[in-house]
Amino acid sequence: MQKILRYIALVDDSLKNIVLKKEPATLYEPITYMLNLGGKRIRPALLMLANNLFGGKDEDALNSALAIEVFHNFTLMHDDIMDEAPLRRGSQSVYKKWNTNVAILSGDVMLIQAIQLLSKENTTALSEVLEIFNTTAVQVCEGQQFDMDFETSSAVSIDDYLKMIELKTAVLLGCSLKIGAIIGNATKEDANHIYEFGKNLGIAFQLMDDVLDLYGDPKKVGKRVGGDVIANKKTYLLLKAQELATGKTKKDLDFCLSSSVLDDKSKVEKVTTLFNELNIKQLATDEMNLFYNTAISHLDSINTLTEKKQVFENFAKNLMSREN
Amino acid sequence: MQKILRYIALVDDSLKNIVLKKEPATLYEPITYMLNLGGKRIRPALLMLANNLFGGKDEDALNSALAIEVFHNFTLMHDDIMDEAPLRRGSQSVYKKWNTNVAILSGDVMLIQAIQLLSKENTTALSEVLEIFNTTAVQVCEGQQFDMDFETSSAVSIDDYLKMIELKTAVLLGCSLKIGAIIGNATKEDANHIYEFGKNLGIAFQLMDDVLDLYGDPKKVGKRVGGDVIANKKTYLLLKAQELATGKTKKDLDFCLSSSVLDDKSKVEKVTTLFNELNIKQLATDEMNLFYNTAISHLDSINTLTEKKQVFENFAKNLMSREN
Repeated sequence: MQKILRYIALVDDSLKNIVLKKEPATLYEPITYMLNLGGKRIRPALLMLANNLFGGKDEDALNSALAIEVFHNFTLMHDDIMDEAPLRRGSQSVYKKWNTNVAILSGDVMLIQAIQLLSKENTTALSEVLEIFNTTAVQVCEGQQFDMDFETSSAVSIDDYLKMIELKTAVLLGCSLKIGAIIGNATKEDANHIYEFGKNLGIAFQLMDDVLDLYGDPKKVGKRVGGDVIANKKTYLLLKAQELATGKTKKDLDFCLSSSVLDDKSKVEKVTTLFNELNIKQLATDEMNLFYNTAISHLDSINTLTEKKQVFENFAKNLMSREN
Repeated sequence: MQKILRYIALVDDSLKNIVLKKEPATLYEPITYMLNLGGKRIRPALLMLANNLFGGKDEDALNSALAIEVFHNFTLMHDDIMDEAPLRRGSQSVYKKWNTNVAILSGDVMLIQAIQLLSKENTTALSEVLEIFNTTAVQVCEGQQFDMDFETSSAVSIDDYLKMIELKTAVLLGCSLKIGAIIGNATKEDANHIYEFGKNLGIAFQLMDDVLDLYGDPKKVGKRVGGDVIANKKTYLLLKAQELATGKTKKDLDFCLSSSVLDDKSKVEKVTTLFNELNIKQLATDEMNLFYNTAISHLDSINTLTEKKQVFENFAKNLMSREN
């Protein structure tokens, strides 16, 4: 894992050195603020690692890695407006600290800056890199729109949900790895395998998020257990339960979702009991493992030495053994 | 002018045929709506014309022309949120017809679609095209931010104002022409000359807008004469008057700007009298002509037959002889 940590540090440092024009300050200060709020820098580090896997030079991939991180932060800046999220990584979100207009326009500039950083990789691969980036960027917007649409929709299927998390978060992980592979001059097949590795791992990660929200160790999850249940959030767990529940179980579940007399604690307890009756935790874990195994099989298919791929498998294992 | 009209029609038709993914509809319907609201399609038509001037093929420039129009409409969609503009081209603006979140996210997708269209020009010029496009896109955002900042600033100079209109609107005209030139394989010098032609013409056009708002023939302007004066809008006219006014004229001007007893008609009359005392119309026209002449001198410097450039000169003349 040493290599990942080194890349994370490199990305973190380089982000601080992105020279931002200072005028108008109203436009650029929020960008600097946002990029300095922290973040795990996983996506750009994996991009660098994928480039390295195929023998590419670090300096050829760094700008693209930064582009992915700037793009990701652009989506967060606009999402926070749409989701009315007052906090981002424990600090005020940009729209809350400044205002909505500032968050819109500074976000727009970040999206353009991401393209600028990508375009600096003035290689023959530029149009290939832009193709996967643009496709992914549109998908991320589609995912956010589906997520918002779901809030008011009464007919969200498991397939809809899986598609949404794939678009909203998983494809960007796949895209990061694929751009690294393209810059590292991987074959088309290998670039696609590493994309599928990232995408499937991303979906598995999101499903794990859903499971941990209710079944995680409260001491380790670091937030209130059952937050999704309290908010009636359409997670994999709830959607699966709604798909399977019949008779009294269905009636009880509907009651929990619509009751205004249940306090939060009782609601979480009752819903957990119903989920357990329906074996939801196991079903969600099975689904998660399906995506995880698909990810690993794509990693296995990459035509390079197993020992070189070990760092990716370790990363995937670590990700799935997390408890928060 | 026949050629321009043909390109305008081509762009208009092609925009209708941009196949938009249908799901989620909440994301794509506003884009189709926005692109079908009309618009003069001047920028994309000039891009095609510049490409043609240097001997490029129409089919090599069409996607870039569409990219410029999609980008322009993205800026309008986001600007309407920020400016709280309920109407766009006589119809409801997107944020008003749907909501702010829809206008943010659909706008984001349009910005990415613009890059996608540009990237389809898979020529050796791609990185050159992207460089001028990205630089311009950031400048347009900066211009919008300066414009918003000016509303609450008490110290806007003429230079600040000229910089703002250059960034907010003029550079995109220059950029459109330059991209056409690059695709048409123009020399660097010629590409820069046509950029400067467009940029300077764009500034002259904006200054004319300011003059016509107060001094245009009300029958021809098609809107209330003096709208900018009534709104205390910091136009070239007002900023120049504030720069020059002293003594009683300054006092009278300040009174007009801050009085709550003056009705709109009297305010426009009084301010016009003060502007006339200060010779503002002439000074604004002189400034406008300065930029216009600079534009024409760059056109003259382009290394090609004068008769081939005639269409650009005619276009510029038409633009400046407008009465609305």
